[in-house]
Amino acid sequence: MTNAVTPPGTPAPANTFTSAVFRPEPLAMPGGDETVLRGGRHLFPLLPRAFAGVRRIGVIGWGSQGRAQARNLRDSLAGTDITVTVGLRPGSASAADARAHGFTEENGTLGALLDVVAASDLVLLLIADAALAEHHREILGALRPGATIGLSHGFLLAHLAAEGGAPPAGHAVIAVCPKGMGNSVRRLYEQGETTEGAGINSSFAVHADPDGRAVDLALGWSVALGSPYTFRTTLDSEYRSDIVGERAILLGAVHGLVEALWQHFRLGGDDPVTAYERSCEVVTGPLARTVSRSGLAGVREGLDEAGRDTFDRAYSAAYRPARDLVAEIYDEVAAGNELRGVLLAERRLAERPMSPVGTSPMWAAAPEVHARRARREVPVDPLTAGVFVATMTAQVDEFAERGHPWSEIVNESVIEAVDSLLPYMHARDVAFMVDNCSRTARLGARRWGPRFLAACQQNVLPAVQRPADDGLLAAFLANPVHRALASAARLRPTVDISVDGSAG
Amino acid sequence: MTNAVTPPGTPAPANTFTSAVFRPEPLAMPGGDETVLRGGRHLFPLLPRAFAGVRRIGVIGWGSQGRAQARNLRDSLAGTDITVTVGLRPGSASAADARAHGFTEENGTLGALLDVVAASDLVLLLIADAALAEHHREILGALRPGATIGLSHGFLLAHLAAEGGAPPAGHAVIAVCPKGMGNSVRRLYEQGETTEGAGINSSFAVHADPDGRAVDLALGWSVALGSPYTFRTTLDSEYRSDIVGERAILLGAVHGLVEALWQHFRLGGDDPVTAYERSCEVVTGPLARTVSRSGLAGVREGLDEAGRDTFDRAYSAAYRPARDLVAEIYDEVAAGNELRGVLLAERRLAERPMSPVGTSPMWAAAPEVHARRARREVPVDPLTAGVFVATMTAQVDEFAERGHPWSEIVNESVIEAVDSLLPYMHARDVAFMVDNCSRTARLGARRWGPRFLAACQQNVLPAVQRPADDGLLAAFLANPVHRALASAARLRPTVDISVDGSAG
Repeated sequence: MTNAVTPPGTPAPANTFTSAVFRPEPLAMPGGDETVLRGGRHLFPLLPRAFAGVRRIGVIGWGSQGRAQARNLRDSLAGTDITVTVGLRPGSASAADARAHGFTEENGTLGALLDVVAASDLVLLLIADAALAEHHREILGALRPGATIGLSHGFLLAHLAAEGGAPPAGHAVIAVCPKGMGNSVRRLYEQGETTEGAGINSSFAVHADPDGRAVDLALGWSVALGSPYTFRTTLDSEYRSDIVGERAILLGAVHGLVEALWQHFRLGGDDPVTAYERSCEVVTGPLARTVSRSGLAGVREGLDEAGRDTFDRAYSAAYRPARDLVAEIYDEVAAGNELRGVLLAERRLAERPMSPVGTSPMWAAAPEVHARRARREVPVDPLTAGVFVATMTAQVDEFAERGHPWSEIVNESVIEAVDSLLPYMHARDVAFMVDNCSRTARLGARRWGPRFLAACQQNVLPAVQRPADDGLLAAFLANPVHRALASAARLRPTVDISVDGSAG
Repeated sequence: MTNAVTPPGTPAPANTFTSAVFRPEPLAMPGGDETVLRGGRHLFPLLPRAFAGVRRIGVIGWGSQGRAQARNLRDSLAGTDITVTVGLRPGSASAADARAHGFTEENGTLGALLDVVAASDLVLLLIADAALAEHHREILGALRPGATIGLSHGFLLAHLAAEGGAPPAGHAVIAVCPKGMGNSVRRLYEQGETTEGAGINSSFAVHADPDGRAVDLALGWSVALGSPYTFRTTLDSEYRSDIVGERAILLGAVHGLVEALWQHFRLGGDDPVTAYERSCEVVTGPLARTVSRSGLAGVREGLDEAGRDTFDRAYSAAYRPARDLVAEIYDEVAAGNELRGVLLAERRLAERPMSPVGTSPMWAAAPEVHARRARREVPVDPLTAGVFVATMTAQVDEFAERGHPWSEIVNESVIEAVDSLLPYMHARDVAFMVDNCSRTARLGARRWGPRFLAACQQNVLPAVQRPADDGLLAAFLANPVHRALASAARLRPTVDISVDGSAG
């Protein structure tokens, strides 16, 4: 049941694969066909074959991803003989919440971190980056022979490489990386009970495959998480796009841009609530929804003539400064500076806890903006829309220039934003998200958000009065991202994500 | 004529030294006596002895430092048999200006870079960091046997160390590092013709000393530049304090803070000119002058009771966020991230030139603020003063905790700011300075200025309404920096620096 897409002997590019269990299919993308696996609950009966040899899955950590993945895996594997166990460090503050969700010592599904590692055939390392940096030796040393190491992003391998090390030989090393926060991974899985295919897309990667079963194991894991579709990447490519993305359009840029736009509207005479609505509310609300349903071009198409003129000038003013910043972030991530910076920050945090970002003046307007939602629909402000779409497109173009697969590009730059993070920010506000996300993301957003803020004040907004740049706009209208988004959209339903206020 | 300050056999700490030519003296500093050499024109007759064996000094580069140092050295050595020659890369756009200042091919004092290197006994490498990173192999390879390598900051050695290299053996390697921009090094030297001792203090360091003459050579160089006093450091210590300082209180923090304060005053109802006066004009004008004459404590003492209350609350709100940022910058510099970031940026600059910072709204008010100077004296705004003094003190405290000599601390954190950079910014404005300083400084200010801006908006200004922190204020009043500044002040006259608008 393999779907070979390349002749024998040709080394497959990183984004194609075959499977002995599932039926992957080609997906037309601007760079050529990529192989993807469409997910769905109808595939759950295949999970025992994909997980052959795995009796116990150890989910290490109960952060955003651990909390979501442990529950999705348990629910998807219900009725099989595979047990999902959660491993926490002694005294973890998360134990109570894990127990409340049915992972308990009594039923043998909650245990001490190293005990769970030692007892599991598939060990999913979902603890925080800094904890992984500090404890990876004990953890990797506790693995049983032949156990598979599972990751949800590329941090550990990047960290080991920076130390001149590597994961221990003899173990398969796979990654399944949901392109959304843990909160969404769980919420959309639940919505998937009634809306077939609702979920968060995932990439997967195989770093070591001693027995040739790594691809099927990774695909099984992804299907069990509820991924509408799963595409292949490498851990290095995943690491770079993931870390750059959260510093740019997924988080850091959102925060910096809405702060700059709010101040701009305020200085132009708007009251705090109106300025908030024209900046932050537009981005997290109607703009995110429009992109989710109609793609990036749909935002511009939805504007009237005057709005389109403003959009075009804002897009023209914002594209180059945004691209410069994304290129700088990419260089810093690829050179290891961001990783070193995070580890240096972790050392300082004991003495110098991170200060919040939600204390700046604009966020005081959030409650009134939220209260007004029931009474009126906020229109898309064309200035805000042009700046935001230009920044998103800049990230898309930078990733394409750096050779990422298009599935990764659209998921890390567009789909994760509009279907996971922005809806969460809409419910809780952007500053809350920055102050409550993973430490690596939080540090990155604090480092790069202010750069987007400053670039917007110094370079973007002062240039908005100039005529639009026809070359930039033509490139936008012809951008291959529109085709890539259309292809990706065919694999999953449009879902209005329900977001509650619980921790991410 | 040596002034040994330590018993024989005791390794001297980095900040003490003896001389066979000059008469250094002890300077009482909070960490204990440091050795310093007081400068002055009366020492010029000793220069031939200090430069014994040097017939030709090659000044490589005609940037800010090269342009100033070549002229000061030539003027100080007039009448001796030592020739100062300027070496430029072929086709350098600076050649015309060098010729206009009397360095010409005809009189043998202007030549091709590598020719001048090969012909000089003392080679001062004052070209831009990126050029040095690119060309150091050819340059070091062209040195004549026994020639001394002279540096004005620690970049080259840090870069060589990062590459796993070192300067070639057999050459003395010394550094003399003026604690001010080249413009001030020249302007104050000229003012020193009538005001004995006017000038920019310098640190010196000896990295390699094959014939035991390196200290005297460095001291001669510093005296010839017009340094009112010269203190000892190491190249590593100099590099870290120099790079951190320009990212923090010397440049990056100034820019970020005045932008944040301007926006704050504007949103509070001030017109653009008044907001500019309360933020930027206060810092570069009366605040810098007050610190120069009366130290940091003098700023607070000069306020009335209501002003002092505001100052205390602003200081309390700003100290911790500023200290956190300076600590982060220090870690990034010490780990090499800043250096790598600069080199990565240099590679991008061909395709992506740096965008200006002077285009944000506040700088449009500068001409009117400058025009009003003749008509009125701007009072010290106590909020701005508290924020700025807290940030300056935070840098002082961080440098002290990291073990820098106190001469270096006060020069890199206070004296260079108030006697060189802020007066220049007062004449041309802060954004102009950021857009026209060295590439390394410019990149650093663009990276860190927005962090100070964001911290001010998010953490400092929202906390100003809280009561002052008595512990922080007591620590400020008892801070050893006040004694260190008083000691340093005794070695040099107070000079109102004349600043014209010419390039730095």
